[in-house]
Amino acid sequence: MIPVTVLGLGPMGRALAAAFAAAGHPTTVWNRTPGKAYDLDVTVAESAAGAIAASPLTVVSVLDYRAVRSVLDAGTLKGRTLVNLTGGSPRQARETAEWAAAHGIGYLDGLIMGAPAAIGGPDATLLFSGQEDAYLAHRPTLAALGGNAAYLGADPGRAAGFDAAMLDAFWTSLSGVVHAFRLAAAENIAAADIAGYVKVATGLLPDLIDVVAEHVTAGHYPGDESTMLSAAASMDHVLDAVRANDLDDGVLSSARAAVQRAIDAGHGPAAFTRLAAP
Amino acid sequence: MIPVTVLGLGPMGRALAAAFAAAGHPTTVWNRTPGKAYDLDVTVAESAAGAIAASPLTVVSVLDYRAVRSVLDAGTLKGRTLVNLTGGSPRQARETAEWAAAHGIGYLDGLIMGAPAAIGGPDATLLFSGQEDAYLAHRPTLAALGGNAAYLGADPGRAAGFDAAMLDAFWTSLSGVVHAFRLAAAENIAAADIAGYVKVATGLLPDLIDVVAEHVTAGHYPGDESTMLSAAASMDHVLDAVRANDLDDGVLSSARAAVQRAIDAGHGPAAFTRLAAP
Repeated sequence: MIPVTVLGLGPMGRALAAAFAAAGHPTTVWNRTPGKAYDLDVTVAESAAGAIAASPLTVVSVLDYRAVRSVLDAGTLKGRTLVNLTGGSPRQARETAEWAAAHGIGYLDGLIMGAPAAIGGPDATLLFSGQEDAYLAHRPTLAALGGNAAYLGADPGRAAGFDAAMLDAFWTSLSGVVHAFRLAAAENIAAADIAGYVKVATGLLPDLIDVVAEHVTAGHYPGDESTMLSAAASMDHVLDAVRANDLDDGVLSSARAAVQRAIDAGHGPAAFTRLAAP
Repeated sequence: MIPVTVLGLGPMGRALAAAFAAAGHPTTVWNRTPGKAYDLDVTVAESAAGAIAASPLTVVSVLDYRAVRSVLDAGTLKGRTLVNLTGGSPRQARETAEWAAAHGIGYLDGLIMGAPAAIGGPDATLLFSGQEDAYLAHRPTLAALGGNAAYLGADPGRAAGFDAAMLDAFWTSLSGVVHAFRLAAAENIAAADIAGYVKVATGLLPDLIDVVAEHVTAGHYPGDESTMLSAAASMDHVLDAVRANDLDDGVLSSARAAVQRAIDAGHGPAAFTRLAAP
């Protein structure tokens, strides 16, 4: 089995190292703070460079891209492959890929969908982008991390682009959900009473995501069922309730402002999906 | 069968009138613009007051509460019951209830969950709040509108409060979804390629809604799995991608600002759900 090195032993890095070791790969680890590998079947290196030297493939999972660059030793990585599973933006991924290319380092940028507990299991999904030959060479090793892996393309920022789009939808949605509970509380509605209804409201999203995709693909945003104007009226009801309770209206006001700009640009009769138009 | 009057024959008002008529209620309608009832089995009144006079129960479904007040004739409604299914805020519902009480009019404020096409079917859900005796008296008649009806309480603003909370989550979430597609397009990711991943991201919401409800109910927001600080870092990655593409960052910036206020208030180690704390 091909040896693997894992840099960073936060919850995700520990899960990655455990999955490689469980699959039979001789696994070397390093973490800035020692003592995180006491219960793992791995070799602990005394330095990042020493860990990198032990394997043709190094996987890094640390806090952010700044930490990535601070732990990597370009000289030792030369001629080896680096898989960066640290969360970041497409720009950061592309910059790191350029740095890797300048130092003769094979580079893949990856994205893990799911919690550390899912790593190594059949449901863990990992998305990769960057050098296709590096992906094909290390695909059998990376398969130890999860049952679903996909290669998205040669642009090293592509996995991070998928990640950013997903997280954009995720954090904005979750912000709406917590705000809905906050508004319910202000209206003396108990959390347990509103929860099911918030699920009904957000349960409309899967079908609407298909509609958005259909409209964007067609470049046509027909307001047959509801329009930008009706969305504005509905949002104004909510804003009225939010402001009457002296709650923070920042997120919904910004969403409403985007709708207003679309209306002012003549898209009032179009569907709300028009906001997704490139 | 008890006669019913429906004021307003937009798509929803037409569906309401059709459902009452189909259930066998002698149904009288009025709309500001005539000609909307040509295919309905109803009696068309020449004035709103004339329509109200025909039935003990009047249902109004118009554009907004301003339109509600402009079409209602208090003198004719006196001693009868008004069910207002027009969308509005809790404050507007309470104001209209006060107006009704001052004129000796029974009042229920209601909320329809679902499209006009669902009205009268087993899946249409209607929520009511206001005078309980009015609800109990007219419950069998209102049952013609849908299979699921619930009475939420005596506060006439309560149905609108549920509505506002649901729509808060809905519009904010949908804003995030369309923005995710916009960001994907900027990153050269096709709508059809990102759609499934946006579904995965928003598919986490049902379980998270349960977590929010649990935390709010307990008044305890443990950051065991993820924290306000990790949310901030993740949102910053997305904002970096959004700004690098010169896209509107208003909604996510506002969401990020709320997270920052929580961190500054000492809630960095708490869960993101802390934002829902009353």
